This record gives sequence, structure tokens and C-alpha cells, in this order.
Amino acid sequence: MKSYLEMTREELLAEKNELEKEFQNIKALSLDLNLTRGKPSPHQLDLSMGMYDIISSKSILRTEAGTDCRNYGSLDGIDEAKRLMAGFMDCREDQVIVHGNASLSIMYDTIARAMIHGVLGSTPWCRLDKVKFLCPVPGYDRHFAITQYFGIEMINVPMTKTGPDMDLVEKLVQEDASVKGIWCVPKYSNPQGITYADETVRRFAALKPAAPDFRIYWDNAYAVHDLYEDDKDELLPIMRECEKVGSQDMVYEFCSTSKVTFSGAGISAMGMSEANRNDMLKQMSVQTIGHDKIKQWTHTRYLKDMDGVRAHMAKHAAIIRPKFEAVDQILSREIAPRKIGTWVKPKGGYFICFEALEGCAKAIVKKAKEAGIELTAAGAPFPYRIDPKDATIRIAPTFPELEEMKQAANVFACCVRLVSVEKLLTCC
Amino acid sequence: MKSYLEMTREELLAEKNELEKEFQNIKALSLDLNLTRGKPSPHQLDLSMGMYDIISSKSILRTEAGTDCRNYGSLDGIDEAKRLMAGFMDCREDQVIVHGNASLSIMYDTIARAMIHGVLGSTPWCRLDKVKFLCPVPGYDRHFAITQYFGIEMINVPMTKTGPDMDLVEKLVQEDASVKGIWCVPKYSNPQGITYADETVRRFAALKPAAPDFRIYWDNAYAVHDLYEDDKDELLPIMRECEKVGSQDMVYEFCSTSKVTFSGAGISAMGMSEANRNDMLKQMSVQTIGHDKIKQWTHTRYLKDMDGVRAHMAKHAAIIRPKFEAVDQILSREIAPRKIGTWVKPKGGYFICFEALEGCAKAIVKKAKEAGIELTAAGAPFPYRIDPKDATIRIAPTFPELEEMKQAANVFACCVRLVSVEKLLTCC
Repeated sequence: MKSYLEMTREELLAEKNELEKEFQNIKALSLDLNLTRGKPSPHQLDLSMGMYDIISSKSILRTEAGTDCRNYGSLDGIDEAKRLMAGFMDCREDQVIVHGNASLSIMYDTIARAMIHGVLGSTPWCRLDKVKFLCPVPGYDRHFAITQYFGIEMINVPMTKTGPDMDLVEKLVQEDASVKGIWCVPKYSNPQGITYADETVRRFAALKPAAPDFRIYWDNAYAVHDLYEDDKDELLPIMRECEKVGSQDMVYEFCSTSKVTFSGAGISAMGMSEANRNDMLKQMSVQTIGHDKIKQWTHTRYLKDMDGVRAHMAKHAAIIRPKFEAVDQILSREIAPRKIGTWVKPKGGYFICFEALEGCAKAIVKKAKEAGIELTAAGAPFPYRIDPKDATIRIAPTFPELEEMKQAANVFACCVRLVSVEKLLTCC
Repeated sequence: MKSYLEMTREELLAEKNELEKEFQNIKALSLDLNLTRGKPSPHQLDLSMGMYDIISSKSILRTEAGTDCRNYGSLDGIDEAKRLMAGFMDCREDQVIVHGNASLSIMYDTIARAMIHGVLGSTPWCRLDKVKFLCPVPGYDRHFAITQYFGIEMINVPMTKTGPDMDLVEKLVQEDASVKGIWCVPKYSNPQGITYADETVRRFAALKPAAPDFRIYWDNAYAVHDLYEDDKDELLPIMRECEKVGSQDMVYEFCSTSKVTFSGAGISAMGMSEANRNDMLKQMSVQTIGHDKIKQWTHTRYLKDMDGVRAHMAKHAAIIRPKFEAVDQILSREIAPRKIGTWVKPKGGYFICFEALEGCAKAIVKKAKEAGIELTAAGAPFPYRIDPKDATIRIAPTFPELEEMKQAANVFACCVRLVSVEKLLTCC
């Protein structure tokens, strides 16, 4: 199979002709498929329904320490939930605060607190002329939405195969005191599925920020979301690396069970140094009387410990692995030899990130929509929703059924080919 | 029985002598009772355990509209939960947003949003030199803690038997554009148990604030928390009254099931005008992917509708009514005839508010502690925890067992008498 880049104009025109016929045939199928949703499929959610068989009117909803989970209290979570979530983050139980149904709200709240009250006594950010965040790109759109909402200037930092470009991160963090944070999804990154290399994590821990209130926002959303039991990425625990070099106040770690048990109905947690934790608890004591302990009780009784979590996640992997592999196979067959797109084959997480030829992403998304396939808007994985190269497309394989996923990936491949041919024809 | 106020010095000295002996006898009992906790007793929490019999691994956790409650989505809550919470607030379903496990967090967040983003396009409060809140006193300590945390100046407004002193409220709100809000617990107020009169509610709806971003923070925490089925206080629905006069953007209403089902593990909600609701949803779309819909599902399936809620609350009343009545009887017997304290006998809510002789509250709390009875700190129901008269003591009768409550109330009465005698002796 010939690379499109090596085709003559005549060959490209012939290819275009063929693809247009194929596209018309696809359109005639009136498909209605959706690849935008980074959420579990119903079969995955079924995996956790057993949680509701371990609780009934007869249950004694007490913690190990004897606290009644049905009443107020336990601001930082019940001990057994702290222990479980410490396992997700590979940190100590005493570094954890267990929160409500979503880690996104904790991140929002952590930024809101810095805006109004500062960080460990620093000037509240709302009083500063300029606050900047580093945003590894492509990244998670909802991170960027939070910083944009608070009027924080976002600076793109390119992702590499080992994580963010650390030369650039070090330079910006160490030179500019208005840089107050960086968004990271360090394991199976959203959307590329890249896990930060050990060296990257160590360089993060060794950062010497110009701003004392600079924090690494370490969203370990896919901490346990491996696709292959015998080929997992291992992420160095940032909290421990920071402790080794005395920089433990520089990191906030986040995680949740949203894609372990129920999405938006699980529990979430933060891992932090003692100083950061006390700072947060001071605010929380005003904000809430405590998070839902009954849900903490059911989660800890159901998942038990990290062995339990890993066994549970293997069931998820069995459901979603074939979908990821189908996309990879179809792209490998249809796209790779034609040299019109690249992607990382992820070993975990929730996405496949497709890099089209420059200037093609929007057109591919539009073309796919015409064919009945909904894709995440081009630009979404970038601050301000602007992809400077117009090349990145996020594919979410978990929610559709396998056969739908295969059909959608084939249609997607056809759209990529058609748009790429058109692009190449306008260039030459 | 003679009023202490009419006693001669000799009579007071004799009384003191007797009371000191009684106090020594009490101390010898080494009691350990706690009247600080405005939270349900375990028996009350048992009432809702049936909720966990209606959910199991076999449940189809879908909303009436077919949404899967186990997955992301439904930012403003599921329809049936909106309908249920609209019943609590006597407003329309389309005015409701259902939130997480506690209304306190919504209040905190509503103020945080105003601080950073303003209210319906107004200047963010963090950019203003001065922001003030009116605080009907005595009131709810956690309200005051929120405004204090955000550096908002709090102005005391005395409570009357019909609600806050509305002459003062009108004057302050209409004259001072830095007054941005007022905290209200309009039904069975915390801690006095006073329900705002119809006229008070109408005057609230008719306020003409100098600040366009002034809001009434209407915390209807005890909307359905009646002690007597045949003698309930009726609160005029503020949302409707505001709509009648076109002031619907001026009120935020809050409620929750914290003292209906499980404390800190129920659901909460806000009722608002369309403009306020859209403003909040814009923020929420950045802050969260939605609140826990499984809990909304279990709550709506268990409580069903307002008839279900009322039947459920009657069971709560049956448990706590005897405790409230015991306190009332003991105070009526021991305190009232001696003219050394007053209180409103509440028909609902969670507290009894005792007004001691001026300058006695702190001493009574201290004395009770010596006798093994923990009372809420004097001053707690006031902004900055300063009770200008040092007279108010909040009693929380719900948590202790009935016999404990009786014992504690008797000890409390002894302490009130002893401190009052001492006070009167220093005055004359």
C-alpha cells in the first residue's frame, strides 16, 4: 500500500474518486454512532452492582473505628477509605482527604481556594495581575475549562513520549513567578495514553519554582486503569519522589473511583503533604460537615483493598480492551501505511489520540459527522479549544459496543483518507 | 415559687447555699452528657435504613426519563429529584438544581462564586472594598463561619417573634449598596425555632436593595421538620411571593434531606429564578459533571413524594418530640417561675434557644461543663462568636436518649439557677 505522501496528483485524484464513492455508500447507511464520550459502557457499570448487595436495612453502617456513617462528621473521610485511596495514589494514608463524588470538583475547589485565599498564606491569586498555568497538550479539556473560567492564562507545553517537555516546564516554572501551576494526567494521559517516564517524575519533584505557591496538579485519573495485566505502565509515585528531595508541598494529587465503580457516583480523594492538607482542612471545616460516609463504607467494603481493586479493574479491561484493539487494528491497516496519521497505542486509560496531517482535524470531524459519527470537537484537548496545528482528534472507545466501535473506526478511517487526499491535492 | 428578681440578698444567699450543695451532689455523679450536637439520634437514622432494601444488584438504576444513574451526566439533577425537592421548597420543579450531600456546601459555593465572578454579571465581590451581610441573631453558626471566612463584614439584626427586625433589614438593605446578602433560616429558625410570619416573608419579597447583587440566602433547613402534626407552623413560600412582585432574582433557597434521611449522606437542592439558575449552571458546567444520581434515585424511590416525606417526618417527630417536651417541662418548672430565663417553645426544628439573664451565658456553659454537661459555646449563634449580651445558649435535644436529656436538662436548670443567683448577688 502506497503512502499518500508519495502519490502523484493523478493517483491522488483517483484515490479521491474511489473514496467519494465509498463515502456515499457509508452515508446511505444513516449511521448514528458517538465516539465523544469518555465514559464507561453499561456492561462496565454492571461490574459494580454487587456493591448494592452488601448493604441493606440490616447493615451496621459503622466504620472500623466505630463512627456511625449515617450521621455528620469525619471531615477528612473514614480511615478505611483513606487507606483505600492512598493505595490508588501510592502515598500514605495520613496524606489523604476523601471527598465527594468527583475529583473534578476538588480540582475546581482547590483553584477557587487559591484565588480567594492563596496557598499556604500566599497572596490570593484574585489580587494578582497575572496568574498562569502550564498545560501539557494535548490534554484534558475539563482541566483547561477550570483555569479558563478563573481567568488564568494558559500556556501550551508539548507532550513528548515521556511526558511534558520538561526542558520547557523547568524554564517556565523557574523563570516566571506568575506561573502557579501545571495540569498533569501522569498515567495513561488524557488523551494520548502516555505514562510519564521515571525521569520526568523526578524532574517534576526537583522543580525549583519562582513562585512559592506553584503547585503540580497531578490528576492520577487512570491510576489503576490498565488494559493489559502483564504489560502495565508503572508510574513513579510523585509524593514519594517529592519527599525524597523535600518538595512535598509542591504537589496536589487527585484520584477517584469514577471509572472503577460508578461515574459521578463513586468517591474521590486528594493526596497532599501535611501542610497542604491542614490548609485544605481549614477551608473544608467552613465548607462542609463532611462528605458522604455511607458511600465510603460501601466502596471500602466492596473493593476491600488494592488487590480487590486490581481484580475489579481486570474485569473492566476485559470489556474495553477489544474496543481499543479494534481501533488500533483498523487504523494500523487503513491509515499507518498511507502515512496520513499517527497515534500512540495506549496500554490503559480511556482514549486514543489520533494525529492527522496538519490542518485536517476539523475537516475530518466535520466529514465524520456527515457520515453519522460524532467525534469530540477538534481543538477540545487544547487550552481555549485552539489546536495550533488543527491535527489532534480524541477518540473514546469505551462507551460504544464492540461492533459499533469497529464500524465507527472504519468510517473514521475513510474520512481521514478522504480529507487527507483533499488536503494533499490543495497543497500540490 | 418566688422570682429570683424579687428575692432579698438573704434569700439569695440561702438559695445559693442550697444550690451549691445540689451542685456538689451532681458533680459526684460524674455525668458525661452532650447537648451540643444538632444531629439526629441513631433511632432517627434507623428510620431510613429501608432505603437500602430497595436497591440491589438487580436494580435497574434508570430515571423515569431513561437516564442511567450510574454514569456521568444530568448536571441539574434527575427530574424526579427536582420534583421532590421542589416540594420541600414549595417552588416549581424547573426552578430546582439538585446538589450533593449537603446544602452547606452549596451556600459556601454560592458565596465563593459571587466573590470570584459576581452575581448575574455584577462586579466580583473580591474586587470590592467592602461587602456586608446581615445576620439575624441568634442564628446558625455555620452561616456566619462562611461569611467570616470570605472576609465579609457581618451586621447583627435582632430576631423578633415574627422573624428578623424588618424595619432594620429594610433600612440597611435599601440604604447601603455594600450589603449583599442576608442569612435566613425562615422556618423553625436555628436556634430559636421561630417561623417567619407571612408579613415578614412579604416584606422580604418587597425589599428594594441598593445593591442589584443583593440576595436573600433562604436556608429552609427545617422545611418539613414539624414536631406536631396538628400544630405545624406554615411558612409562606418566598419564591412565589417574590414572583408576585417581580423580585424573583433576589432569593436563593436551600434545603436538604440531611435531617430527613441521613446526615451528610442525603441530597440537597437549591431553588432559584431562571436567571440565577442559568448563572449557576454556567459555573457548575465547569465545576462538575453532575452530582450523585444513584443517591437521587434511592431517595426519590424511598421517599416518593411529599406525602411520603410527611409520613416519614412524623416518625422522626415521634422520637424527638418527647425530648423537646422534657426540656420545656423542666425549664417551665425550674426556671420560668424564678424569672431567670426565657425561651420559645418550638413547634419544629432542631434546637431550643435559652435566654439567660444578661452576662450569664458563658458562666452557665462553664458551670455545666464542670457538672459533666457539654453545651454549645456561648456566643456561637452570633457573628464572630460574640454574644453582645452574653445571654444566649443553644440546646440541642435530638441526639441524647430521652432519659439522658431529662437528666441533662435538670442539671442545666441547676446551673442556670446557681449562676443567676451569683449574678444577682454581685449586682445588688
